[in-house]
Amino acid sequence: MIIAVDGMGGDNAPSVVVEGAILAAKEYSGLQIILVGIEDTLETELSKYKPCSNISIQPASEVVGMDEPAAASVRRKRDSSISVGFELVKARQADGFVTAGNTGAAVCAATLILGLLEKIERPGIAIVIPTLKGTSILIDAGANIDPKPVHLLQYGIMGEAYTKYILKKENPTVGLLNIGEEESKGTEFMKETHRLLNESKLNFMGNIEGRQLFTGNCDCIVSDGFVGNVALKVSESFAEAIDELLRRELNRNVLTRLGAALSRGAFSAIKEELDYSEYGGAPLLGVNGICIISHGRSSAKAIKNAIRVAAESVAQDVNGCILKAMR
Amino acid sequence: MIIAVDGMGGDNAPSVVVEGAILAAKEYSGLQIILVGIEDTLETELSKYKPCSNISIQPASEVVGMDEPAAASVRRKRDSSISVGFELVKARQADGFVTAGNTGAAVCAATLILGLLEKIERPGIAIVIPTLKGTSILIDAGANIDPKPVHLLQYGIMGEAYTKYILKKENPTVGLLNIGEEESKGTEFMKETHRLLNESKLNFMGNIEGRQLFTGNCDCIVSDGFVGNVALKVSESFAEAIDELLRRELNRNVLTRLGAALSRGAFSAIKEELDYSEYGGAPLLGVNGICIISHGRSSAKAIKNAIRVAAESVAQDVNGCILKAMR
Repeated sequence: MIIAVDGMGGDNAPSVVVEGAILAAKEYSGLQIILVGIEDTLETELSKYKPCSNISIQPASEVVGMDEPAAASVRRKRDSSISVGFELVKARQADGFVTAGNTGAAVCAATLILGLLEKIERPGIAIVIPTLKGTSILIDAGANIDPKPVHLLQYGIMGEAYTKYILKKENPTVGLLNIGEEESKGTEFMKETHRLLNESKLNFMGNIEGRQLFTGNCDCIVSDGFVGNVALKVSESFAEAIDELLRRELNRNVLTRLGAALSRGAFSAIKEELDYSEYGGAPLLGVNGICIISHGRSSAKAIKNAIRVAAESVAQDVNGCILKAMR
Repeated sequence: MIIAVDGMGGDNAPSVVVEGAILAAKEYSGLQIILVGIEDTLETELSKYKPCSNISIQPASEVVGMDEPAAASVRRKRDSSISVGFELVKARQADGFVTAGNTGAAVCAATLILGLLEKIERPGIAIVIPTLKGTSILIDAGANIDPKPVHLLQYGIMGEAYTKYILKKENPTVGLLNIGEEESKGTEFMKETHRLLNESKLNFMGNIEGRQLFTGNCDCIVSDGFVGNVALKVSESFAEAIDELLRRELNRNVLTRLGAALSRGAFSAIKEELDYSEYGGAPLLGVNGICIISHGRSSAKAIKNAIRVAAESVAQDVNGCILKAMR
C-alpha cells in the first residue's frame, strides 16, 4: 500500500511532517510513503534521519500558504504539493493522501482532481471525537461552510456508513447539531434539514444540543461545517484552558503539588483520551479517493497516526461502503 | 431597588427559583424581590422557609413551557409569568426581571413589552465567560439565531459598552467569532459583518477562532446567535465530560485517590472558576429595561447570582451606557 503525504503542509512543515513520516515508515513497515513537496527541502529534512527504504519523494515546486484563499490558490498553483498529492491518487500511484496544509485548498483540490462519489454533491470532513462512551464522529467539521440541507442529509448517510463499517458500531444513531432538541428549534435551514433526515432511512434520533457532544449518546453528529468547525475549536480552547488552570492550581502549595504528583497518571490518561493527535486526521468523505485532513498544528505523532488512518481507510474500502449506503 | 423573578421558569421551578430568591433576599437585604407566578404554588414553596419581609408575590396565572414555540406562546399566554414580569418592569413597579424560563419566549416578550433601545434592531444575550486572563463576554449567545450583519455590528457596540462600563475594562478589544483569522475567511455573511465592524469606531481586532475563546485575548466576542449558543453548550459538555473522566481516573487506585484528596482544593477552585452558576445570568442587551436570562438548569445559587447581576445592571445603568455608545 502506498500513502502520499503533503510534505509542505501544516504550521510546522516540513520538519514535523517528515518526522511523522519517518515514525510511520518505521512502525508500519509494509507501507510505502511518498513525501510530496519541494525536493531539496524534503531531502535536507530526510537526511537528518537514518535512510528509510520505504520513504520516497515526489517533487512539487509550489506551496499553498496556510492563509491563502482556497479556490484561487488551487487554480493558480497547479504544481503545489496539495495538487500533486491528489494527482498521485488519481493516477493510482498512491492509495491515499494525507495533508496538514490549508484545509480549504485541500477540499477544493480533492473535489476538482479526484471528483465526487456518485450522488454526493459536496465532500465533508468527518472528525472522530472522544466521548464518555467511546468515540463518535462529527461531520462536517468545516469542508463546506455554506451548505444546503441536502448536503447535510448526504453527510448523515456518509457518516452513518463510516460509523457502521469503519468504527464497527451496529445500527449507529444519527443526530443533527442544533440549538434545541424539539424539531421546531433552529433556523429554517435546520428545520428543513431535520425534515430530510427524519424522512430518510437513517436511525435518526433528532436534534441534539452542543451539551450532548461528549456524552457519547449520538454516534454520528451531523453539522453545518461552519458550526462544526467552531464547536471543535472551542473544545480545543477549553481543553487548553483547563490544562493551564490545573497547572496553576496544582502548583499552588506543597500539598497540591504532592497530590498532583500522585495523580499524575490520571491526568495523562485523560490528556491522551482528549488528545486530537491520537486520532491523527479526519477523513474527507465524498471524494473519489482517500484523503485525510490533519490539523495545521499537527505533531509528528499526529502525522504518523493520520498515515495509519489513511492506510486503514484504504484497507477497509471506505468509499465502497459509502457507495453501498447511497444506493 | 426592586427585582422581579420568574417563579415558574427553569427546569427545576418553582422550588429552585424560590430557594434562590430566599438566598438573595437574605444576602442583599436592601433588595425587594417579587416572585412572579401562580400564587398558590409560590406561597406553598415560600412557606417552607422562614418569612422574609423583602419577598412578595405577583400573581400570573399562566406558565410558558420550556419547549413551547416562543412567539406563539407569548401571543397566546398574556398572563404568563414571563409576560407579567416584563409588564412590571415596563410599569416601573420593578427595576429589572430575572428568568430561567424559555429563552426564546423571554426574548420575544422582552422585545414586545419593553421595546428596543434607540437604533437597536435586535436584542442579544451577552454571556460572561471565564478565561485565562479574567472574564470576557460573548454576544449573542442565542437571542437571534438568524441575524443580519448589521445586528452583529450593534452587538459589537453594545458588548463593548458593557465590557467598558460594567466589567471596567479600558479600551476593550472586539473580535468576530469566525472559522479563520484572515478577513477573507468564512461565509459571505461573515465577510460583510467583518467589513462593518472594521469600518466602525470599535477597537476591532478582526476575526477570532473558537480556539481563542478561553485565552482571554479578546474582551468582547461577537457571534451569530446560533453559533454562539452551540459554542457555549459545547464548552459545558466538555467541562462535564472532563469532570466525569477525572472522577473515573482518580478513583482508579489508592495512590490516585490520595492524590485527588490532596489536590481537592485545586479542583474546586477550577470548578468554581468555570462554573456558570457563579456568573448567575446573562443580560439581554438592547431591550428598554433590565432583563437577565438564566440557564434553564440554574441552581438556587445561580438564581441568587442572577438577581445580583440584575441589581448591578440597574445600579450601573447599563442601558444609559449603551445609549451613549450608540450615539
